[in-house]
Amino acid sequence: MTGERLKQYQTMLEKKLESYLPEEGTQQADVAEAMRYSLLEGGKRIRPVLLMEFCRVCGGDPEKVLPFACAVEMIHTYSLIHDDLPCMDDDSMRRGRPSNHIMFGEASALLAGDALLTMAFEIMSSKEAVEAVGAERAVRASHILAVRAGASGMIGGQQIDLMSEGRGISLDTLRTMDEKKTSALISAACRMGCALAGAGEEKEEAAGRYAWSMGLAFQIVDDILDATGTQEELGKPVHSDAERDKNTYVSFMGLTEASEEAQRLTQEAVKQLDAFGEEAAFLKELTNELCSRRK
Amino acid sequence: MTGERLKQYQTMLEKKLESYLPEEGTQQADVAEAMRYSLLEGGKRIRPVLLMEFCRVCGGDPEKVLPFACAVEMIHTYSLIHDDLPCMDDDSMRRGRPSNHIMFGEASALLAGDALLTMAFEIMSSKEAVEAVGAERAVRASHILAVRAGASGMIGGQQIDLMSEGRGISLDTLRTMDEKKTSALISAACRMGCALAGAGEEKEEAAGRYAWSMGLAFQIVDDILDATGTQEELGKPVHSDAERDKNTYVSFMGLTEASEEAQRLTQEAVKQLDAFGEEAAFLKELTNELCSRRK
Repeated sequence: MTGERLKQYQTMLEKKLESYLPEEGTQQADVAEAMRYSLLEGGKRIRPVLLMEFCRVCGGDPEKVLPFACAVEMIHTYSLIHDDLPCMDDDSMRRGRPSNHIMFGEASALLAGDALLTMAFEIMSSKEAVEAVGAERAVRASHILAVRAGASGMIGGQQIDLMSEGRGISLDTLRTMDEKKTSALISAACRMGCALAGAGEEKEEAAGRYAWSMGLAFQIVDDILDATGTQEELGKPVHSDAERDKNTYVSFMGLTEASEEAQRLTQEAVKQLDAFGEEAAFLKELTNELCSRRK
Repeated sequence: MTGERLKQYQTMLEKKLESYLPEEGTQQADVAEAMRYSLLEGGKRIRPVLLMEFCRVCGGDPEKVLPFACAVEMIHTYSLIHDDLPCMDDDSMRRGRPSNHIMFGEASALLAGDALLTMAFEIMSSKEAVEAVGAERAVRASHILAVRAGASGMIGGQQIDLMSEGRGISLDTLRTMDEKKTSALISAACRMGCALAGAGEEKEEAAGRYAWSMGLAFQIVDDILDATGTQEELGKPVHSDAERDKNTYVSFMGLTEASEEAQRLTQEAVKQLDAFGEEAAFLKELTNELCSRRK
């Protein structure tokens, strides 16, 4: 249903993302190559698509906010690269391919992550971005993203993950962790879309609530797919024993209840989209698709 | 000579830097503690002092640009934390104390670095910063910093360092590496000071040229102090053998010529300060002091 518009956004994003990467053959060739490897290697581009679509339903032009959409994807990509490092999750595979540090070594992976994180903010403060939306909105979007990507948002979630490794945690802590690790960046994307279109506080708050529920639903579906092995068949690495013991929604609730919780959260998310009127039809479909996916 | 004003700036900076750190006792306590350990642990605060002073000599108010000065120091601090990691320089000591990852573990050190890098951009886009200098200048300063901290600046220099480890490199490559590793961030600080005060292109360019020469002079003096062992006596770690073999200005030029080169570059830097008139007297003194330091 959502196929055509989604594909249109994705095509715009791929082209734009590539345009930002440093050229190969320069003295920074290794970092450039490592950045390119992780940034251009697919993924569904959910966060930047949400940013563009929230901008559109608020009356903005999705094409104009491409630099900001790309910035969000760069933050997401850097977090995956650093998360896979041996001192973190020590994952040797990502999306069916060797992780960044397996391909380029730990040092280049570290630097590629740092460079993508830095580039996200370079892009949002570029002449192109400022001319497209004005300095006020550009700086506002930058702030929304920085707050949710930082120590009280995404990085905070990774820290909770780290501290809970190999220990039992409560369902509440698991939820807080996922709100920070997953929902925070999705929330940044949705809120940025609204803010960049000049939507009011009310819509931005609704977008934030949407993201919170949608992010959790998304994460629970991830856990369910992990537990039922669907992702393994699709080339996701077989998890180590340590990782199998991880606290997940499935281990807390069982498959059936986790599934129901995901559905409940999806409905909550979709309900928030009513604030955006009829234009939100695509967002509603997309949300239902993402949260009922089988892979 | 420069003592009093320098101390005044440093006191303002220490207080402001501390105010930005997440509170302890939160769920992000470990990251917060790791951030605090490296950020508040002294250093001369040269970069933020330069930012504030360049702002002043261009007619701006140094206190108003404190958030931007703090942002530069956060970028500098994150780069040191990541640089010390085992996969990079593997330094267990920094400024006479155990490195961040020795104290908090590699994962928390990695996250603390990421969080400081992110926080730099959070601060520059904060309400406080925007109200102090306006959105146009805030976004401009953010861009100046991002470009010079990123893959074509500081991170690019670290990548060259990485690639040249254990290999002989040319003096040209060494210079390019240090321009990127050291001068780029100093250049960002000086240029940001000018831009935040609303100085024209011409002054910003002069500040950039100043920083380029001053940064190299500073680095050569560092190499000389390393070679003559002064820093070891002062608690700097004894370098590993691998590090001793590193390409330095002293190994290329010998002590005398390296010393002369540092003096020549210092003079070049000071000459650029003429563009700022009589107000630049403090900057001239500071530059001479920094580039003729004995520790």
